Amino acid sequence: MSLSEKPIGIFDSGIGGLTVLKEIIKELPAENTVYLGDTARVPYGIRSPETVGKYSIENSDFLMSKGIKVLVVACNTSSSISLLSLKKNLSVPVVGVVEPGARAAVARSRTKKIAVIGTETTIKSDSYKKAIQSADSTAEVTGIACPLFVPLVEEGWLEGDVVTLTAEKYLAGVKDLGVDTIVLGCTHYPMIKDVIADVVKIPLIDSAVETAKEVHNVLRENKILRNNGGEPSREFFVTDSPEKFAETGKIFLGRAISNISKITVGA
Amino acid sequence: MSLSEKPIGIFDSGIGGLTVLKEIIKELPAENTVYLGDTARVPYGIRSPETVGKYSIENSDFLMSKGIKVLVVACNTSSSISLLSLKKNLSVPVVGVVEPGARAAVARSRTKKIAVIGTETTIKSDSYKKAIQSADSTAEVTGIACPLFVPLVEEGWLEGDVVTLTAEKYLAGVKDLGVDTIVLGCTHYPMIKDVIADVVKIPLIDSAVETAKEVHNVLRENKILRNNGGEPSREFFVTDSPEKFAETGKIFLGRAISNISKITVGA
Repeated sequence: MSLSEKPIGIFDSGIGGLTVLKEIIKELPAENTVYLGDTARVPYGIRSPETVGKYSIENSDFLMSKGIKVLVVACNTSSSISLLSLKKNLSVPVVGVVEPGARAAVARSRTKKIAVIGTETTIKSDSYKKAIQSADSTAEVTGIACPLFVPLVEEGWLEGDVVTLTAEKYLAGVKDLGVDTIVLGCTHYPMIKDVIADVVKIPLIDSAVETAKEVHNVLRENKILRNNGGEPSREFFVTDSPEKFAETGKIFLGRAISNISKITVGA
Repeated sequence: MSLSEKPIGIFDSGIGGLTVLKEIIKELPAENTVYLGDTARVPYGIRSPETVGKYSIENSDFLMSKGIKVLVVACNTSSSISLLSLKKNLSVPVVGVVEPGARAAVARSRTKKIAVIGTETTIKSDSYKKAIQSADSTAEVTGIACPLFVPLVEEGWLEGDVVTLTAEKYLAGVKDLGVDTIVLGCTHYPMIKDVIADVVKIPLIDSAVETAKEVHNVLRENKILRNNGGEPSREFFVTDSPEKFAETGKIFLGRAISNISKITVGA
């Protein structure tokens, strides 16, 4: 098989990364894709860096065994913790979700006061702060952990009083900081971006969109864009029951999901 | 070491089971205890029965290696899925949290219309329904899954508008059912029982309290109550970072937690 025919590999702790896959399909509709959701060990955002690192390596090893041409770490927690070591150890290009979102925020912000919202582990890692400040060392970055957003999205409470009140509790203070750009530093958050936008009234950067553009660039630069006109293949792997993934996943992906296999990684 | 000197072994998917340990310490203050929280793979309530079954066996094997005299499955999801197979395969008595709560509900209810609230997996398993109806076959049992209660408790939002509104959303309909007793079918829920009681205005059964009484009975019947006047030992094991467990755990246990070791199970 020629390199360009090989699939783009994408992993996430669960279903959240499907928002990234959705944007990749929109940006690169001809590409073959293989997605791994580590649903038996989700969520990563509450785990220690050591544990997230171990899980990230195990997920990457699985996707590498599928002969991927590029790896997308479609999980902000994994990208924050493991991107450098994956880049160093893998033989294919590796794209995370942090850098594309960080660069887009710097390009968009005029005040250079930027907020990032994400899971506890992503925020504590300071990965967005580092990525934003390496693009513009004068930028001021405020991180805000919003741990309840992921379970709210997974529960399907995408609008209404509970999610709005929760957003207000987490984000009420952000308006006083002079922030003019907020990065959605978690792949679940695009599902509630209208609620967040209503509460903060500040423009949002969707890392999923920026990541898809970055994947496009990487394939173009490496001259491995797929040119074959045949129907692209879409494979899905999960570490827990496929039924629930199919059910909730279709809301994230915006289309029905078939071709899901349950596998074991790292055990 | 004599059998009575051996510790009571308790496992849960994370910190929730500490509400059970707290009641066991209150009921049996002289007993040695060893607690395992599988914090690298929490929460169990969203996982498939197969995965929960595998994790339960791995946790039990670890505690058995510590020479326990009785095993307490302080996790409603694990108790719902795995209790029978653990009872069959282990050489020590096994106590779950479902049966004690179910029996107490039957004893308390006059209308014999009982509601059970818990995680999605616990409710779907129908374990409480079966346990309640095996105590009283005429009882009507309604199960209500409340998936957001666990993340709310873990976030420390134990009171206020978000948890109250969430409880109202889940439990508004319960008053129309003629229910006179509600079982808290998740070890996290005792942390928000005042909020739940305010919303439903129906008496609640706390499975943790009932389970501690059952452990007392089992030790008495097997004549393995500890009589040694020496200070009891308290050991804690977790599968992810001990720091966070110590921090949140002390709220659950109502006392500081030391002597925590990080271990690996099942990998």
